[in-house]
Formats: sequence, C-alpha cells, structure tokens
Amino acid sequence: MTIPTDPETGKFVRSPNHFAARITADGRDGWPVESGRYRLVVSRACPWASRALVVRRLLGLEEAISLAVADPIQDERSWRFTLDPDGRDPVLGIAFLAEAYRAAEPDYDGGVSVPAVVDIPSGKLVTNDYPQITLDLSTEWTAYHREGAPDLYPEKHRDEIDEVNRGVYRDVNAAVYEAGFASKQSAYDDAYSRLFARLDELSERLAGERYLVGDTITEADIRLFTTLVRFDAVYHGHFKCNRRKLAEMPVLWAYARDLFQTPGFGDTVDFDHIKRHYYQVHEQINPSRIVPNGPVLAEWATPHGREELGGRPFGDGTPPGPAPEAETLPPQW
Amino acid sequence: MTIPTDPETGKFVRSPNHFAARITADGRDGWPVESGRYRLVVSRACPWASRALVVRRLLGLEEAISLAVADPIQDERSWRFTLDPDGRDPVLGIAFLAEAYRAAEPDYDGGVSVPAVVDIPSGKLVTNDYPQITLDLSTEWTAYHREGAPDLYPEKHRDEIDEVNRGVYRDVNAAVYEAGFASKQSAYDDAYSRLFARLDELSERLAGERYLVGDTITEADIRLFTTLVRFDAVYHGHFKCNRRKLAEMPVLWAYARDLFQTPGFGDTVDFDHIKRHYYQVHEQINPSRIVPNGPVLAEWATPHGREELGGRPFGDGTPPGPAPEAETLPPQW
Repeated sequence: MTIPTDPETGKFVRSPNHFAARITADGRDGWPVESGRYRLVVSRACPWASRALVVRRLLGLEEAISLAVADPIQDERSWRFTLDPDGRDPVLGIAFLAEAYRAAEPDYDGGVSVPAVVDIPSGKLVTNDYPQITLDLSTEWTAYHREGAPDLYPEKHRDEIDEVNRGVYRDVNAAVYEAGFASKQSAYDDAYSRLFARLDELSERLAGERYLVGDTITEADIRLFTTLVRFDAVYHGHFKCNRRKLAEMPVLWAYARDLFQTPGFGDTVDFDHIKRHYYQVHEQINPSRIVPNGPVLAEWATPHGREELGGRPFGDGTPPGPAPEAETLPPQW
Repeated sequence: MTIPTDPETGKFVRSPNHFAARITADGRDGWPVESGRYRLVVSRACPWASRALVVRRLLGLEEAISLAVADPIQDERSWRFTLDPDGRDPVLGIAFLAEAYRAAEPDYDGGVSVPAVVDIPSGKLVTNDYPQITLDLSTEWTAYHREGAPDLYPEKHRDEIDEVNRGVYRDVNAAVYEAGFASKQSAYDDAYSRLFARLDELSERLAGERYLVGDTITEADIRLFTTLVRFDAVYHGHFKCNRRKLAEMPVLWAYARDLFQTPGFGDTVDFDHIKRHYYQVHEQINPSRIVPNGPVLAEWATPHGREELGGRPFGDGTPPGPAPEAETLPPQW
C-alpha cells in the first residue's frame, strides 16, 4: 500500500468518500430502507468501519442488514474476501470489494474503502460515506431497531454531539493517521500536538462524566472508542503516538474499558485483525511486516470503576443480547 | 545503515569485536595504563558505549582518560565527529572513527563500533572490546581511581556478576536488538519471549534487593541500566518490545529511576542523542526517519522509594562529584 502524502508539507492526504447516496426511510436517493436488501461490508481492522459494527449491534440491526467481513490484509486491489470459502463473499458473490464499486460506476478508479453498504440485488455500492452511515442507521432505520434500542443520536443533543465529533475527528480519529503517515517531522509534530492536547481535554471532560454528551452512550462515544481501542495495540508504537499509552491515561483508559465491556462494543473488536492489518499492510512504515506481540490485551477486562459516575448507558433502553453466532469472535487473549 | 540478518532464520547478526587488546597495569599487551595517553570514543546514543561512560564517571577517571563524543547520526562511513569544530575530534584530529581503526590495521574493512579506546600518540585504535573495557577500567586503572571510588567488580562477587551479566546480555542487552532487527516473525517472537521472561525474573530478584548483586552498585547494574534507560524512548516502539513499557513494570522502573538519579548514571544520558540515533539511522525499520515526541522524560526524576530497601550504593566509597563542565549535558526535559 502506498501512503499518499503532500510533497510540500509531508502531510497524509486522505482520499475523499466518493459515494454519498443515503439509504433513507423515504427512499429519496433511490435507496429505501428495507430489511435484507443491503450488505454492510467492513474490515474489523478499520476504525471507520468499526463505528458501523458497534452501532449495528447496539441497535439490533443484525437481521435487517447482513455483514461481510473483509480480510484484514489488503492486496493491491484493496479489500478482499479471502476469509470466505473460495475467496468470495457468499452473498454478493464477489472476490474484491472493488467489484461493487465498479458495479456502481464502471470507470471508477478511486480508493476502495470500508465501511461500504452494497445493494444486494444489483451488487452496486450505495455508500462509503462513513460519517453518514452510522447516523442513518440511528435515524433512518428506526423501523428495524430492536426493542430497547438506545437513541444514539438524540435530537436534543445533536448540536453538542456534532461539535464533539468534529474535534474528535480532526484531532483524534484522523490525527493518529496523520502522525503515523507523516513524511516530514513537522507534519508529525503537528498531528502529535493536536492529538494529545485533545486527549487531555477529553480526559478532563470525562473525569466527572461517564459519557461524552448527556448521561447515555451516543454516537460521540462510539467515534472516540474506535480510536481508543486501537491506541496501545497500534497507534502508540506504529503511528508514534507515544506521549503516553492509553493505559497510562487513567480517565480515558477507564472510559475505554467501560465501553469495551459494554455489550456491542468489545464483542465487535478483533485485535488480531487490527494488529495484522496495520503492521502488515503499511510496509512503507513497517518494512519487515513483523507484528508486535504486545501489549497485554487481558487488561481490557479489568474493573474500570466508572459505574460510580452514574449514567444510564442505554438511556430508557436495554443492552443488546449476544452477537449472532456467525459473528461471534474467538477469545481475544 | 544496512542491518545484517540471517536469510534463513531472520535473526540479526551482530558484528564481532575485532580489536581485543587490553590496556593493563602491567602493559602485557603493549598498552600500559597511563594517564592522558588514551581517548575513549563513545556515542551517547549507544548502550554499549554508555556502560563505559558510567563506569568512567563512577570511578573518577575523567582526567586520566579523555572523552570524544561522536555525532549520534552515523553516515555510511560510520561514527563521525561532526559535533566538533570543523568536524574533527580536537585531540585525535580525525573526522571519522574509522581512521583510528585503519591506523591500527590499514586493511581493516569490518564494522566500526563504539566504545573505542584510541592511543593518542599513535592515533591507533587499541580496543573496541566493550565487555572488557569496563572491567579493565575497574580492575586495571585502579592507580587513577578517585578517592572514594566504588568497587564495581568486587572479587567476592565476580562469579555471580558474570553469571547475571551473561543472562542480561543474551536476553536483555542483545535481545532488544534481535527483536527490532529481526527480518522474520519467528526471530522476533523468540527475542521478545526471552526478553520479557528475563525482565520478569530480574523484577522478582530486584523486588526485595536494591541492586542486582550484593548490596552495592556493580558492573551488573550498569549493564542492565543502559538498556533500561533506552526502553520506553526507543525499544518499546522502534524495536517492538511492547509487552509493557518500563514505566508499567513497577520494580524495574523504580530500580532504573534509582540508578538514573544516582550521580554518574543519569548525568551521562542524552535522550536527544539516543532518540535521533535509533530513529534516524535505522531507515530499514523507520523509513520516514521521523523521531517520536514521546515519552514524557520528566518522569525519570520522580521519587522511586528504593532507599527503603537499604543497600549502600557506593559501598565503602562515595558518590562522584558533578561531571566535568565540558561533559555537562543540557537539561533533558
């Protein structure tokens, strides 16, 4: 994989999301919400895709939207279904996610990213617009939410959630990549400073509040979680985000463990996929492709003490049941 | 710098020390102990050279044996004196340490390593045999030891010190390099396992004893210290020694801080040299040559509580005074 950076600044350049159609209850983009019609394609390695994995679990959308899990190791044709029998997704019948991109747009030669939502009947990609995908699962797919599904994007908190998300995106979710993929010291330094300044601020915010916005789990927590859960396993060493480990930031570490131990979070996390993906795909920053053995993952299961802060994780709702058997992961340590 | 590995096993192959003459009180190898005659060439980045820096300070040999500090960034001709005016060591008059190697052996084309002891009058390298250099400073240079110099290699504990040193060399000092330079996963895995098993054992040993052998600082502590002081700054991330940080291993972390805060240890440590050397020279494992900003170094100065274990750091001797002005380092954080 070649990492695109700006030759002048050394800054990592993220590809834009090209396909931004929305699947809505009213079907105004031509893609109406419909149970069994769409397939969510993810890599469990990918933090952007993992947001959708968590939201789908919390809302109980596993039956309505089926799941395809790509191999964590991309080749030059990007994400592939080499984990499936005969190397093809059994529902879409394709070997590479790129095939769905080209089904939607035959001349497309841009990036192929996850999460991706594919229309099963036509095999066409509908959207890879990850920030919108999870919000639409919350707000457009309500007809298929499980009983007791939480409100992850409550009306009265949307402005605040959006504002927190902007800072977390710029200085956490994206900044870790900008630190790791920088080709110049100044670009790295800038990302590193923003990252740890923001983590300090989030840590203060979370010292007395169990969740980021309001007293329940929201989209904001999910977006922060998917970066934090990769922090010590990957970003601290591989991306040089090493002021401290997450395990050395007591508030954020307890916060992350609290979420990890909440049904719908930790049960979506595959550390093996995460570690192999980053260390083996980014040969440009890890030429040996050797995957580190650390850190000690069992510590994710240690008591976090955050119940004392109160909060109502699922608001008026309830926790999700266990993951469907086909999506149950092997023990992580 | 090209890192030599075995194509079959992927194991890092360390170059042997070619020059093994000894400077002795009786001069039996032709190199008698003599004040002002020899120059110790080091890089403050290098753990092997740093042993000699610590021992020379503890024994008060700064006047008897002068010091040349190489630039932490080697070029293809290896260690160079680019930190000195006109890029030449002011005493030896050479730009590259390799010149002293070739003065000793005109056809030499092997590795050029530090520590190196050079005979000033002839400009010839005498020895780069780092395990022997420090022992000889302790046992052969006694005529020039300061008043109150400690006995770092006491007769009655030599067998035990040698035994501890063998394990520490194999599974700590050398293993971190074998983990970082491995070109195959199995070679990395092997080094990682040995490293952390040995650190566990050392941690148990040091839980109730202030120093490794006896109740005073010895050569054994110095050899362990020079790896531990680099652990979180370099080996944890750059060399993938990431089961835990040193800062997460309470006994070893307190032990390392205790030594760091002892005169003669921390005052030889230049974290800037250490970090720039590893991250910028090993392009094979860090192609971007970006130097991480972490970790937080100020924590080396925090209380360690090891005084409670008793022990007599300098035995019947005393701590060294401050480093000579010319060797005093800038604040490290």
